[in-house]
Amino acid sequence: MIEDTKALEDLKRALKRLPGVGAKSAQRMAFHLLGRDRDAARNIAHALLHAVERIGHCQRCNNFSETETCAICRSARRDTGLLCVVESPADLVSLEQSGAFSGTYFVLMGRLSPLDGIGPDELGLPKLEALLDGGTVREVILATNATVEGEATAHYIGELARRRNLLATRIACGVPIGGELEYIDRGTLARAFSGRREA
Amino acid sequence: MIEDTKALEDLKRALKRLPGVGAKSAQRMAFHLLGRDRDAARNIAHALLHAVERIGHCQRCNNFSETETCAICRSARRDTGLLCVVESPADLVSLEQSGAFSGTYFVLMGRLSPLDGIGPDELGLPKLEALLDGGTVREVILATNATVEGEATAHYIGELARRRNLLATRIACGVPIGGELEYIDRGTLARAFSGRREA
Repeated sequence: MIEDTKALEDLKRALKRLPGVGAKSAQRMAFHLLGRDRDAARNIAHALLHAVERIGHCQRCNNFSETETCAICRSARRDTGLLCVVESPADLVSLEQSGAFSGTYFVLMGRLSPLDGIGPDELGLPKLEALLDGGTVREVILATNATVEGEATAHYIGELARRRNLLATRIACGVPIGGELEYIDRGTLARAFSGRREA
Repeated sequence: MIEDTKALEDLKRALKRLPGVGAKSAQRMAFHLLGRDRDAARNIAHALLHAVERIGHCQRCNNFSETETCAICRSARRDTGLLCVVESPADLVSLEQSGAFSGTYFVLMGRLSPLDGIGPDELGLPKLEALLDGGTVREVILATNATVEGEATAHYIGELARRRNLLATRIACGVPIGGELEYIDRGTLARAFSGRREA
Protein backbone atom coordinates (compact mmCIF):
# COMPACT_ATOMS: atom_id res chain seq x y z
CA MET A 1 0.00 0.00 0.00
CA ILE A 2 1.40 3.34 -0.94
CA GLU A 3 1.22 5.56 2.05
CA ASP A 4 3.45 8.29 3.09
CA THR A 5 2.76 8.22 6.72
CA LYS A 6 4.85 6.02 8.93
CA ALA A 7 3.34 7.83 11.92
CA LEU A 8 -0.12 6.85 10.70
CA GLU A 9 0.83 3.21 10.25
CA ASP A 10 2.40 3.20 13.71
CA LEU A 11 -0.78 4.71 15.16
CA LYS A 12 -3.01 2.11 13.50
CA ARG A 13 -0.76 -0.68 14.76
CA ALA A 14 -0.80 0.77 18.29
CA LEU A 15 -4.60 1.17 18.33
CA LYS A 16 -4.98 -2.46 17.27
CA ARG A 17 -3.55 -3.41 20.66
CA LEU A 18 -6.79 -2.21 22.26
CA PRO A 19 -9.07 -5.15 23.09
CA GLY A 20 -11.78 -5.69 20.49
CA VAL A 21 -10.13 -3.40 17.93
CA GLY A 22 -9.15 -4.88 14.56
CA ALA A 23 -7.45 -3.34 11.54
CA LYS A 24 -10.61 -1.66 10.23
CA SER A 25 -11.60 -0.12 13.57
CA ALA A 26 -8.04 1.01 14.23
CA GLN A 27 -7.99 2.82 10.89
CA ARG A 28 -11.38 4.38 11.58
CA MET A 29 -10.18 5.59 14.98
CA ALA A 30 -6.94 6.97 13.57
CA PHE A 31 -8.67 8.85 10.74
CA HIS A 32 -11.35 10.16 13.07
CA LEU A 33 -8.84 11.49 15.59
CA LEU A 34 -6.52 13.00 12.99
CA GLY A 35 -9.26 14.43 10.82
CA ARG A 36 -11.80 15.62 13.33
CA ASP A 37 -10.62 15.47 16.91
CA ARG A 38 -6.93 15.99 17.49
CA ASP A 39 -7.77 17.34 20.89
CA ALA A 40 -9.23 13.93 21.81
CA ALA A 41 -6.04 12.25 20.58
CA ARG A 42 -3.95 14.38 22.93
CA ASN A 43 -6.45 13.86 25.73
CA ILE A 44 -6.35 10.06 25.36
CA ALA A 45 -2.55 10.04 25.18
CA HIS A 46 -2.15 12.06 28.35
CA ALA A 47 -4.84 10.09 30.21
CA LEU A 48 -3.07 6.85 29.29
CA LEU A 49 0.34 8.04 30.42
CA HIS A 50 -1.08 9.52 33.60
CA ALA A 51 -3.06 6.36 34.43
CA VAL A 52 -0.14 4.03 33.80
CA GLU A 53 2.02 6.15 36.05
CA ARG A 54 -0.45 6.71 38.86
CA ILE A 55 -2.59 3.61 39.14
CA GLY A 56 -1.27 0.69 41.14
CA HIS A 57 -3.02 -1.93 43.24
CA CYS A 58 -4.64 -1.59 46.67
CA GLN A 59 -2.43 -3.36 49.17
CA ARG A 60 -5.44 -5.00 50.83
CA CYS A 61 -7.90 -5.93 48.09
CA ASN A 62 -5.65 -5.83 45.04
CA ASN A 63 -8.06 -3.64 43.05
CA PHE A 64 -6.72 -0.75 40.99
CA SER A 65 -6.04 2.24 43.21
CA GLU A 66 -4.13 5.47 43.13
CA THR A 67 -3.60 5.32 46.86
CA GLU A 68 -1.91 2.56 48.84
CA THR A 69 -5.27 1.40 50.20
CA CYS A 70 -8.38 1.96 48.09
CA ALA A 71 -11.48 3.92 49.13
CA ILE A 72 -13.59 0.80 49.68
CA CYS A 73 -11.03 -0.79 51.98
CA ARG A 74 -10.62 2.49 53.88
CA SER A 75 -14.34 3.16 54.25
CA ALA A 76 -15.73 2.84 57.78
CA ARG A 77 -19.14 1.98 56.30
CA ARG A 78 -18.02 -1.27 54.71
CA ASP A 79 -18.23 -4.53 56.66
CA THR A 80 -14.70 -5.94 56.66
CA GLY A 81 -16.10 -9.22 58.02
CA LEU A 82 -17.55 -9.95 54.56
CA LEU A 83 -14.98 -10.56 51.85
CA CYS A 84 -16.23 -10.94 48.28
CA VAL A 85 -13.71 -12.56 45.94
CA VAL A 86 -14.01 -11.53 42.28
CA GLU A 87 -11.92 -12.24 39.22
CA SER A 88 -11.55 -8.72 37.87
CA PRO A 89 -11.99 -5.01 38.61
CA ALA A 90 -14.82 -4.99 36.07
CA ASP A 91 -16.69 -7.61 38.16
CA LEU A 92 -16.21 -5.41 41.22
CA VAL A 93 -17.66 -2.42 39.35
CA SER A 94 -20.71 -4.48 38.33
CA LEU A 95 -21.31 -5.66 41.90
CA GLU A 96 -20.95 -2.11 43.23
CA GLN A 97 -23.45 -0.89 40.66
CA SER A 98 -25.93 -3.57 41.79
CA GLY A 99 -25.80 -2.02 45.27
CA ALA A 100 -26.25 -5.50 46.74
CA PHE A 101 -23.08 -5.65 48.79
CA SER A 102 -21.62 -3.51 51.53
CA GLY A 103 -18.65 -5.65 52.52
CA THR A 104 -15.14 -5.56 51.09
CA TYR A 105 -13.53 -7.25 48.12
CA PHE A 106 -10.53 -9.19 47.01
CA VAL A 107 -9.72 -8.92 43.31
CA LEU A 108 -7.88 -11.95 41.93
CA MET A 109 -6.90 -10.27 38.64
CA GLY A 110 -7.53 -13.58 36.89
CA ARG A 111 -8.60 -17.13 37.67
CA LEU A 112 -6.90 -20.46 38.21
CA SER A 113 -6.04 -21.84 34.81
CA PRO A 114 -3.44 -24.63 35.04
CA LEU A 115 -3.35 -25.02 31.24
CA ASP A 116 -2.19 -21.39 30.95
CA GLY A 117 0.27 -21.86 33.79
CA ILE A 118 -1.78 -19.82 36.25
CA GLY A 119 -1.67 -21.56 39.61
CA PRO A 120 -2.34 -20.27 43.15
CA ASP A 121 0.96 -18.39 43.35
CA GLU A 122 0.58 -16.65 39.98
CA LEU A 123 -2.89 -15.55 41.08
CA GLY A 124 -1.59 -13.93 44.26
CA LEU A 125 -3.47 -16.32 46.52
CA PRO A 126 -0.83 -16.05 49.27
CA LYS A 127 -1.92 -12.43 49.62
CA LEU A 128 -5.54 -13.57 49.97
CA GLU A 129 -4.52 -16.20 52.54
CA ALA A 130 -2.73 -13.55 54.60
CA LEU A 131 -5.94 -11.50 54.55
CA LEU A 132 -7.99 -14.52 55.67
CA ASP A 133 -5.44 -15.12 58.48
CA GLY A 134 -5.83 -11.48 59.58
CA GLY A 135 -8.78 -12.26 61.85
CA THR A 136 -11.34 -9.77 60.54
CA VAL A 137 -13.00 -11.86 57.82
CA ARG A 138 -16.00 -14.00 58.88
CA GLU A 139 -17.43 -14.98 55.51
CA VAL A 140 -15.83 -15.39 52.12
CA ILE A 141 -18.31 -14.83 49.28
CA LEU A 142 -17.07 -16.55 46.13
CA ALA A 143 -18.18 -14.35 43.23
CA THR A 144 -15.96 -15.68 40.48
CA ASN A 145 -17.57 -16.25 37.07
CA ALA A 146 -19.90 -19.20 36.49
CA THR A 147 -17.43 -20.72 34.04
CA VAL A 148 -15.45 -23.93 34.45
CA GLU A 149 -12.37 -22.00 35.51
CA GLY A 150 -14.35 -19.64 37.72
CA GLU A 151 -15.97 -22.60 39.48
CA ALA A 152 -12.61 -24.29 40.00
CA THR A 153 -11.18 -21.08 41.42
CA ALA A 154 -14.16 -20.70 43.76
CA HIS A 155 -13.76 -24.30 44.88
CA TYR A 156 -10.08 -23.81 45.63
CA ILE A 157 -10.58 -20.59 47.58
CA GLY A 158 -13.54 -22.12 49.41
CA GLU A 159 -11.16 -24.77 50.69
CA LEU A 160 -8.71 -22.09 51.86
CA ALA A 161 -11.55 -20.47 53.83
CA ARG A 162 -12.93 -23.66 55.36
CA ARG A 163 -9.45 -24.70 56.44
CA ARG A 164 -9.47 -21.54 58.58
CA ASN A 165 -12.98 -22.26 59.91
CA LEU A 166 -14.41 -19.35 57.90
CA LEU A 167 -17.79 -19.55 56.21
CA ALA A 168 -17.44 -19.83 52.44
CA THR A 169 -20.49 -19.06 50.28
CA ARG A 170 -21.01 -19.06 46.51
CA ILE A 171 -23.26 -16.59 44.68
CA ALA A 172 -26.42 -18.26 43.32
CA CYS A 173 -26.66 -19.61 39.80
CA GLY A 174 -30.04 -19.77 38.11
CA VAL A 175 -32.49 -18.09 35.78
CA PRO A 176 -31.69 -14.38 35.19
CA ILE A 177 -34.38 -11.89 36.27
CA GLY A 178 -36.74 -11.42 33.34
CA GLY A 179 -35.50 -14.64 31.75
CA GLU A 180 -37.97 -16.87 29.94
CA LEU A 181 -37.41 -20.57 30.56
CA GLU A 182 -37.92 -21.35 26.87
CA TYR A 183 -34.73 -19.51 26.00
CA ILE A 184 -32.51 -20.50 28.94
CA ASP A 185 -29.75 -23.03 28.26
CA ARG A 186 -29.96 -26.50 29.78
CA GLY A 187 -27.01 -26.09 32.13
CA THR A 188 -28.53 -23.01 33.74
CA LEU A 189 -31.94 -24.68 34.07
CA ALA A 190 -30.35 -27.71 35.74
CA ARG A 191 -28.55 -25.42 38.20
CA ALA A 192 -31.77 -23.48 38.85
CA PHE A 193 -33.49 -26.76 39.73
CA SER A 194 -30.77 -28.17 41.93
CA GLY A 195 -30.51 -24.81 43.69
CA ARG A 196 -34.26 -24.42 44.33
CA ARG A 197 -35.37 -23.03 47.68
CA GLU A 198 -38.59 -23.16 49.67
CA ALA A 199 -40.94 -20.47 48.33
CA MET B 1 -19.78 4.71 42.54
CA ILE B 2 -17.02 4.44 45.07
CA GLU B 3 -13.75 4.48 43.26
CA ASP B 4 -10.48 5.76 44.34
CA THR B 5 -9.01 6.41 40.99
CA LYS B 6 -9.52 9.75 39.39
CA ALA B 7 -6.88 8.78 36.84
CA LEU B 8 -8.96 5.73 35.94
CA GLU B 9 -12.13 7.75 35.53
CA ASP B 10 -10.25 10.26 33.39
CA LEU B 11 -8.90 7.43 31.25
CA LYS B 12 -12.35 5.90 30.72
CA ARG B 13 -13.75 9.31 29.79
CA ALA B 14 -10.89 9.90 27.34
CA LEU B 15 -11.27 6.47 25.69
CA LYS B 16 -14.98 7.12 25.19
CA ARG B 17 -13.97 9.83 22.74
CA LEU B 18 -12.83 7.12 20.32
CA PRO B 19 -15.45 6.51 17.62
CA GLY B 20 -17.64 3.51 18.36
CA VAL B 21 -16.49 3.23 21.97
CA GLY B 22 -19.11 3.53 24.72
CA ALA B 23 -18.84 3.40 28.50
CA LYS B 24 -18.60 -0.38 28.69
CA SER B 25 -15.93 -0.71 25.99
CA ALA B 26 -13.95 2.17 27.46
CA GLN B 27 -13.89 0.45 30.83
CA ARG B 28 -12.89 -2.84 29.24
CA MET B 29 -10.05 -1.12 27.38
CA ALA B 30 -8.87 0.71 30.50
CA PHE B 31 -8.87 -2.43 32.65
CA HIS B 32 -7.19 -4.47 29.94
CA LEU B 33 -4.40 -1.94 29.46
CA LEU B 34 -3.82 -1.35 33.17
CA GLY B 35 -4.10 -4.98 34.17
CA ARG B 36 -2.40 -6.78 31.34
CA ASP B 37 -0.68 -4.52 28.89
CA ARG B 38 0.75 -1.30 30.27
CA ASP B 39 3.31 -1.41 27.51
CA ALA B 40 0.50 -1.10 24.96
CA ALA B 41 -0.90 1.88 26.87
CA ARG B 42 2.42 3.70 26.60
CA ASN B 43 2.76 2.63 22.96
CA ILE B 44 -0.69 3.99 22.06
CA ALA B 45 -0.05 7.24 23.93
CA HIS B 46 3.24 7.90 22.18
CA ALA B 47 1.85 6.91 18.76
CA LEU B 48 -1.04 9.34 19.25
CA LEU B 49 1.17 12.24 20.27
CA HIS B 50 3.63 11.50 17.47
CA ALA B 51 0.89 11.23 14.85
CA VAL B 52 -0.84 14.43 15.94
CA GLU B 53 2.43 16.26 15.76
CA ARG B 54 3.72 14.83 12.51
CA ILE B 55 0.74 14.22 10.28
CA GLY B 56 -0.61 17.11 8.26
CA HIS B 57 -2.28 17.27 4.87
CA CYS B 58 -0.73 16.88 1.43
CA GLN B 59 -0.68 20.30 -0.20
CA ARG B 60 -1.91 18.85 -3.51
CA CYS B 61 -4.46 16.14 -2.68
CA ASN B 62 -5.34 17.05 0.89
CA ASN B 63 -4.82 13.47 2.15
CA PHE B 64 -3.00 12.87 5.42
CA SER B 65 0.73 13.10 4.90
CA GLU B 66 3.87 13.52 6.92
CA THR B 67 5.54 15.27 4.04
CA GLU B 68 4.41 18.42 2.28
CA THR B 69 3.37 16.41 -0.78
CA CYS B 70 2.29 12.79 -0.29
CA ALA B 71 3.86 9.74 -1.90
CA ILE B 72 1.00 9.24 -4.37
CA CYS B 73 1.18 12.83 -5.62
CA ARG B 74 4.98 12.60 -5.89
CA SER B 75 5.00 9.25 -7.68
CA ALA B 76 6.07 9.33 -11.33
CA ARG B 77 3.99 6.20 -11.97
CA ARG B 78 0.65 7.87 -11.23
CA ASP B 79 -1.29 9.53 -14.01
CA THR B 80 -1.84 13.12 -12.85
CA GLY B 81 -4.31 13.58 -15.70
CA LEU B 82 -6.83 11.45 -13.79
CA LEU B 83 -8.12 12.99 -10.59
CA CYS B 84 -10.32 10.85 -8.36
CA VAL B 85 -12.31 12.86 -5.82
CA VAL B 86 -13.17 10.98 -2.59
CA GLU B 87 -14.79 12.06 0.64
CA SER B 88 -12.29 10.60 3.10
CA PRO B 89 -8.81 9.10 3.52
CA ALA B 90 -10.52 5.77 4.31
CA ASP B 91 -12.18 5.83 0.88
CA LEU B 92 -8.78 6.45 -0.69
CA VAL B 93 -7.32 3.45 1.17
CA SER B 94 -10.18 1.24 -0.08
CA LEU B 95 -9.67 2.36 -3.68
CA GLU B 96 -5.92 1.81 -3.43
CA GLN B 97 -6.53 -1.68 -2.07
CA SER B 98 -8.80 -2.45 -5.03
CA GLY B 99 -5.85 -1.77 -7.31
CA ALA B 100 -8.26 -0.36 -9.89
CA PHE B 101 -6.84 3.12 -10.14
CA SER B 102 -3.46 4.51 -11.03
CA GLY B 103 -4.26 8.21 -11.18
CA THR B 104 -4.16 10.72 -8.35
CA TYR B 105 -6.68 11.76 -5.73
CA PHE B 106 -8.29 14.72 -4.11
CA VAL B 107 -9.60 14.08 -0.60
CA LEU B 108 -12.50 16.35 0.37
CA MET B 109 -12.39 15.46 4.09
CA GLY B 110 -16.18 15.57 4.12
CA ARG B 111 -19.09 16.22 1.81
CA LEU B 112 -21.39 19.10 1.03
CA SER B 113 -23.99 19.24 3.74
CA PRO B 114 -25.79 22.60 3.83
CA LEU B 115 -27.87 21.56 6.86
CA ASP B 116 -24.66 21.12 8.85
CA GLY B 117 -23.27 24.38 7.50
CA ILE B 118 -20.78 22.67 5.21
CA GLY B 119 -20.71 24.52 1.91
CA PRO B 120 -18.11 24.65 -0.87
CA ASP B 121 -15.74 26.86 1.11
CA GLU B 122 -15.85 24.76 4.28
CA LEU B 123 -15.07 21.72 2.15
CA GLY B 124 -11.96 23.30 0.68
CA LEU B 125 -13.33 23.32 -2.84
CA PRO B 126 -11.32 26.44 -3.79
CA LYS B 127 -8.22 24.24 -3.36
CA LEU B 128 -9.76 21.66 -5.71
CA GLU B 129 -10.65 24.38 -8.21
CA ALA B 130 -7.07 25.62 -8.19
CA LEU B 131 -5.93 22.07 -8.95
CA LEU B 132 -8.43 21.81 -11.83
CA ASP B 133 -7.16 25.14 -13.16
CA GLY B 134 -3.58 23.83 -13.02
CA GLY B 135 -3.78 22.34 -16.50
CA THR B 136 -2.70 18.73 -15.79
CA VAL B 137 -6.09 17.19 -15.01
CA ARG B 138 -8.03 15.73 -17.99
CA GLU B 139 -10.72 13.73 -16.20
CA VAL B 140 -12.32 14.13 -12.81
CA ILE B 141 -13.62 10.83 -11.44
CA LEU B 142 -16.32 11.49 -8.86
CA ALA B 143 -15.97 8.75 -6.24
CA THR B 144 -17.98 10.25 -3.42
CA ASN B 145 -20.34 7.93 -1.55
CA ALA B 146 -23.62 6.81 -3.12
CA THR B 147 -25.59 8.69 -0.48
CA VAL B 148 -27.78 11.75 -0.96
CA GLU B 149 -25.03 14.06 0.23
CA GLY B 150 -22.35 12.20 -1.70
CA GLU B 151 -24.42 12.48 -4.91
CA ALA B 152 -25.01 16.19 -4.33
CA THR B 153 -21.29 16.71 -3.77
CA ALA B 154 -20.47 14.76 -6.95
CA HIS B 155 -22.98 16.83 -8.91
CA TYR B 156 -21.50 20.10 -7.66
CA ILE B 157 -17.90 19.10 -8.41
CA GLY B 158 -18.97 17.71 -11.78
CA GLU B 159 -20.22 21.19 -12.63
CA LEU B 160 -16.89 22.71 -11.59
CA ALA B 161 -15.10 20.31 -13.96
CA ARG B 162 -17.45 20.80 -16.91
CA ARG B 163 -17.19 24.57 -16.55
CA ARG B 164 -13.45 24.09 -17.23
CA ASN B 165 -14.14 21.76 -20.19
CA LEU B 166 -12.81 18.79 -18.23
CA LEU B 167 -14.40 15.35 -18.48
CA ALA B 168 -16.33 14.49 -15.31
CA THR B 169 -17.26 10.86 -14.68
CA ARG B 170 -19.08 9.14 -11.82
CA ILE B 171 -18.21 5.66 -10.54
CA ALA B 172 -20.89 3.10 -11.44
CA CYS B 173 -23.75 2.23 -9.12
CA GLY B 174 -25.31 -1.20 -9.35
CA VAL B 175 -25.44 -4.73 -8.02
CA PRO B 176 -22.34 -5.62 -5.93
CA ILE B 177 -20.21 -8.52 -7.21
CA GLY B 178 -21.62 -11.74 -5.75
CA GLY B 179 -24.89 -9.99 -4.97
CA GLU B 180 -28.16 -11.88 -5.39
CA LEU B 181 -30.94 -9.80 -6.91
CA GLU B 182 -33.44 -11.19 -4.41
CA TYR B 183 -31.66 -9.41 -1.57
CA ILE B 184 -30.72 -6.14 -3.26
CA ASP B 185 -32.68 -3.04 -2.29
CA ARG B 186 -35.02 -1.40 -4.79
CA GLY B 187 -32.98 1.77 -5.20
CA THR B 188 -29.87 -0.16 -6.17
CA LEU B 189 -31.81 -2.37 -8.60
CA ALA B 190 -33.36 0.70 -10.25
CA ARG B 191 -29.87 2.21 -10.65
CA ALA B 192 -28.51 -1.05 -12.02
CA PHE B 193 -31.27 -1.01 -14.66
CA SER B 194 -30.93 2.60 -15.67
CA GLY B 195 -27.14 2.16 -15.86
CA ARG B 196 -27.25 -1.02 -18.00
CA ARG B 197 -24.68 -1.37 -20.78
CA GLU B 198 -24.46 -3.45 -23.92
CA ALA B 199 -23.20 -6.92 -22.99
